[in-house]
Amino acid sequence: MPDVLVVGASGYAGAIAAELLWRHPHFELVALTAREDAGRALRELYPHHRVPLALEQLDLDRAAGADAAIVAYPHGTAAPVVAALLERGLRVVDLSADFRLRDVAVYERWYVEHPHPELLERAVYGLTELYREQIAAATLVACPGCFPTAAILALAPLAAAGLIADVVIDAKTGVSGMGKQPRAGNHFVAVTENVRPYGVGAHRHMPEIDQELAALGAPVPVAFTPHLLPIDQGELLSCYVAPTRAVSQAELEEIYARRYAGEPFIELVATAPGVRDVRETNVCAISVHADERTGKLFVFAAIDNLWKGTASQAVANLNLMFGFDEGAGLA
Amino acid sequence: MPDVLVVGASGYAGAIAAELLWRHPHFELVALTAREDAGRALRELYPHHRVPLALEQLDLDRAAGADAAIVAYPHGTAAPVVAALLERGLRVVDLSADFRLRDVAVYERWYVEHPHPELLERAVYGLTELYREQIAAATLVACPGCFPTAAILALAPLAAAGLIADVVIDAKTGVSGMGKQPRAGNHFVAVTENVRPYGVGAHRHMPEIDQELAALGAPVPVAFTPHLLPIDQGELLSCYVAPTRAVSQAELEEIYARRYAGEPFIELVATAPGVRDVRETNVCAISVHADERTGKLFVFAAIDNLWKGTASQAVANLNLMFGFDEGAGLA
Amino acid sequence: MPDVLVVGASGYAGAIAAELLWRHPHFELVALTAREDAGRALRELYPHHRVPLALEQLDLDRAAGADAAIVAYPHGTAAPVVAALLERGLRVVDLSADFRLRDVAVYERWYVEHPHPELLERAVYGLTELYREQIAAATLVACPGCFPTAAILALAPLAAAGLIADVVIDAKTGVSGMGKQPRAGNHFVAVTENVRPYGVGAHRHMPEIDQELAALGAPVPVAFTPHLLPIDQGELLSCYVAPTRAVSQAELEEIYARRYAGEPFIELVATAPGVRDVRETNVCAISVHADERTGKLFVFAAIDNLWKGTASQAVANLNLMFGFDEGAGLA
Amino acid sequence: MPDVLVVGASGYAGAIAAELLWRHPHFELVALTAREDAGRALRELYPHHRVPLALEQLDLDRAAGADAAIVAYPHGTAAPVVAALLERGLRVVDLSADFRLRDVAVYERWYVEHPHPELLERAVYGLTELYREQIAAATLVACPGCFPTAAILALAPLAAAGLIADVVIDAKTGVSGMGKQPRAGNHFVAVTENVRPYGVGAHRHMPEIDQELAALGAPVPVAFTPHLLPIDQGELLSCYVAPTRAVSQAELEEIYARRYAGEPFIELVATAPGVRDVRETNVCAISVHADERTGKLFVFAAIDNLWKGTASQAVANLNLMFGFDEGAGLA
Repeated sequence: MPDVLVVGASGYAGAIAAELLWRHPHFELVALTAREDAGRALRELYPHHRVPLALEQLDLDRAAGADAAIVAYPHGTAAPVVAALLERGLRVVDLSADFRLRDVAVYERWYVEHPHPELLERAVYGLTELYREQIAAATLVACPGCFPTAAILALAPLAAAGLIADVVIDAKTGVSGMGKQPRAGNHFVAVTENVRPYGVGAHRHMPEIDQELAALGAPVPVAFTPHLLPIDQGELLSCYVAPTRAVSQAELEEIYARRYAGEPFIELVATAPGVRDVRETNVCAISVHADERTGKLFVFAAIDNLWKGTASQAVANLNLMFGFDEGAGLA
Repeated sequence: MPDVLVVGASGYAGAIAAELLWRHPHFELVALTAREDAGRALRELYPHHRVPLALEQLDLDRAAGADAAIVAYPHGTAAPVVAALLERGLRVVDLSADFRLRDVAVYERWYVEHPHPELLERAVYGLTELYREQIAAATLVACPGCFPTAAILALAPLAAAGLIADVVIDAKTGVSGMGKQPRAGNHFVAVTENVRPYGVGAHRHMPEIDQELAALGAPVPVAFTPHLLPIDQGELLSCYVAPTRAVSQAELEEIYARRYAGEPFIELVATAPGVRDVRETNVCAISVHADERTGKLFVFAAIDNLWKGTASQAVANLNLMFGFDEGAGLA
Repeated sequence: MPDVLVVGASGYAGAIAAELLWRHPHFELVALTAREDAGRALRELYPHHRVPLALEQLDLDRAAGADAAIVAYPHGTAAPVVAALLERGLRVVDLSADFRLRDVAVYERWYVEHPHPELLERAVYGLTELYREQIAAATLVACPGCFPTAAILALAPLAAAGLIADVVIDAKTGVSGMGKQPRAGNHFVAVTENVRPYGVGAHRHMPEIDQELAALGAPVPVAFTPHLLPIDQGELLSCYVAPTRAVSQAELEEIYARRYAGEPFIELVATAPGVRDVRETNVCAISVHADERTGKLFVFAAIDNLWKGTASQAVANLNLMFGFDEGAGLA
Repeated sequence: MPDVLVVGASGYAGAIAAELLWRHPHFELVALTAREDAGRALRELYPHHRVPLALEQLDLDRAAGADAAIVAYPHGTAAPVVAALLERGLRVVDLSADFRLRDVAVYERWYVEHPHPELLERAVYGLTELYREQIAAATLVACPGCFPTAAILALAPLAAAGLIADVVIDAKTGVSGMGKQPRAGNHFVAVTENVRPYGVGAHRHMPEIDQELAALGAPVPVAFTPHLLPIDQGELLSCYVAPTRAVSQAELEEIYARRYAGEPFIELVATAPGVRDVRETNVCAISVHADERTGKLFVFAAIDNLWKGTASQAVANLNLMFGFDEGAGLA
């Protein structure tokens, strides 16, 4: 059994990755690390998790004995750790933004100076459904952001078919997407019975969506706006596409059915999905609607931001990197 | 003091209208009627309301003695009651869809056969900010739907300026918008921790939005999709406009500031509003964003669907019809 | 593999039982039945479940080929079905109240005329931790109500030690405990931002708690009051015990530790548990506090009402009845 | 019009007090102060409030010109400010715990060293229904804690009648009761779909309840446990009383009806109240149940913790101190 560690297991996504690896049939979870909270049991932070391990400080010498790591650090701080782990021979799945954008200039415009640009070409973008083969061969996988995961899965069939002239993405997300650090914006009283747009025109997940849509053949800057909802986990993306030509409902369904035939974690559904339908799963549920009134194509995609949007997609990718079934440990 | 009755006070909107009129400085609330629940005190149905009246069956002879009525019946059943009340000399504010659409053919395509098409030309569309003078002179006011209220207020400045080439409206609404009848879709368990689009491509509020945008100079069919959220009251509309020409942030703000100067219930805000900001008020809060990346114009509008979206707008209109200050009883 | 059917799989608990059996390593789920909704796939009703079976009408002839059934019918209607299945040689785990109360007179005082009193002596009360051996040998197991499950587990150590002079139980429950039938009381708008006692002095779970406490040595009628909370799943019971003699914190902890040593699904925790800690688990989390100010003993117990309170406890019992590990299929 | 300032208006309760005074018919709100956030408009912090004033640093010289102040500081820091304002001739309503406990030793056991014990005898305990006359004559009113407000109102009739042998109070509260400072415990993700006891055996509101029950004739230490609920505002107290003698339902109702006859803000209700029934009101809703099974008396009391539990009760007291109608500005 390959030994795996989770670096940065005190955040929501790292903790779920730990939980999934702990119950995993093919991996051995050997350590959980955290920059703060070292010494505390994971269950002290998350009493609903069942992993009996304690958090510890990252020890690169000990880490060198493992086979792989999932790194769940904030952008900018992830890259140096990833570099150190790669150097010690581990395969790494990184959950930060540090290796998602292939163009270092774009990264630096939206984030910070890149700590390890030399590693960029080694990184594979970890959207499982699009890069399955490259992921299987990779030593460094950069897991997509939660919004890009849903957005790209929602739009890839249309992008690849050259059908996107223009697109508006209206995203709704649960509060766990903001992270566990207490802030005015995630105080219960600020969120309950409320809904509010945020990051208007400025959300860092946009260049990532742009990059992948362009790679698929749709070089359109997306109009993307997230909204904060009084829910814990879950993301719904409502995509409104102005197509390059008229598309009927039948053709639209056919395009998606063909593209996603055989995909184990894409569910094409007839009725627009709710986020509860996919909670705590690796599933992306998608429905499509060719709107006769306006000629637009509506695509709705629901994921669990902490699972398919982060932790379970990371484990699926790790499965591929070690030759296991993509869904091992995720059922 | 003019005597007013609320016809259909057992629903959410009717009950709030009753509450507002009960505390109103210039109107005398003389009766509450309901088709079911007659004989029960309003507080039995809504313990958080304080109106001490009981619901009774509608008695048209007694109603004839009143000066005005707010009618809160479902579409199709409202029109006959409205006709009967008008005949007896009452001024009527109708909350149903029966008199909102000026073209009877459009009404009949989306709803049912119209029971009283001859009254259509007498009806004034009750969006206060757009039809203030006509409302003041009207005997029949057809209050807008909750979504159209926010949508038209959000878009009117752009529509009137000829700036809307295309528009996508993504709406988020609380559960009270579905009415008080218990159904699988408003069961707490179905709604909590969930968000789901509904009425995709088929919501009856679309022709109403189309009608008013066209009247303002933007004959564009809107792409409109509502989403059900785990909140009680409140509606947020996110409007994505493809403009007919480039518009800067400064010009955009100027367009809204000019259009809504002096409006007592429009709040132009710098940060995108949340629905909590306007809960239990007659306010529509609006923010605008000229998106440099895409050239699109984003407009966010928040209202309380049961207040500005229904009951308080009805009372504001009633105020105008009797020469009172528009905001009387609404502070 | 024993063949199992779920009779009444369209309710919340039945559907979860189906989900658990579908993924179970040792049982074969052969059919789901429902009185209404026959012909519909379970996923149409519960899109978050993954069982691919459709609901069908109960066919006793076909059922005769199975080895066991979980019956999830309302009280009064369950007993005849249970009788018919027992007659056909199936082992039955019943989720209704029909076989929980050993005294038919008590049953008939709180419920209805008993349809099959002759089966009462055959029934074993399905609180796993108390009746493990009898359950293993039983052909009919009557699963406890959700409140009694938590109440009895919370109080059993004290009852058995003769330490309960008097007890107040204040229960808080999620809305799923009211069932899936839409009603005014479970409408989202009635529940959100609210908390309200119900069934004051009259809840049917009281005689069941009385019966088991008496059997353990504490013949005290409990003061029990449930409260409805704006959550989906989960139950927290706060028990306030006036002890028969002074008990220190150390002794109190010792009593619980000894009683529950080795119990796989009882978690004794130092900090009072929240219901999220045990969501979607078969776990009952318990904390104890000897209150110096008042001399009282506080016991807090949290369960998932649909899991340990119903469906997963049913599966644990079924495991025992067939000689499998109690926790098989529940991890 | 008396001039009033709110000292500490940036917290939840202070901001509501400001809102109530701003709309008040008889007081002039002259200033809002805050230790942090000075310079910001109140609406920046609370977009749902409508007071157009900005927060400023407390200036005692300017404050000297006002007639009264509501002070909303944390315990320990309130007393010095209260002392300074009293010295300048203002009448003060203090929302902190500093002047609630008449016995300085008790205060210092539960809180800190008392900064101004010499003022204790000047302070009147601000539970309006119990100390109305003393409040009217007072220059310093110490508003009760939110839990004591509901607890004492729930139990006063029984305490005064000598009927309380023993009492358990199980309290459920919304998150606003924890204050606005972001912490792990009020993060949306920690609270939603959860309920959890806190402060078990150690909550600082207990000595306050003890003090007042003793004053009323029931010198019993209360067993009091608060629980945190996923709601914003609202508190429900479920009180379980072991009476000193048998009390029938009729007598119980009579005791409460007599005690609270004519009270404008006590609502005796037949069905156990929910917190929504009293949201944003100064009302305490109470229901009583004489439990035949156990002989106990159940009393349920619901308030809005930020209104009757804090801010609106403060304004009611201020009304009395200036000879206005108790309910002025609170309807």
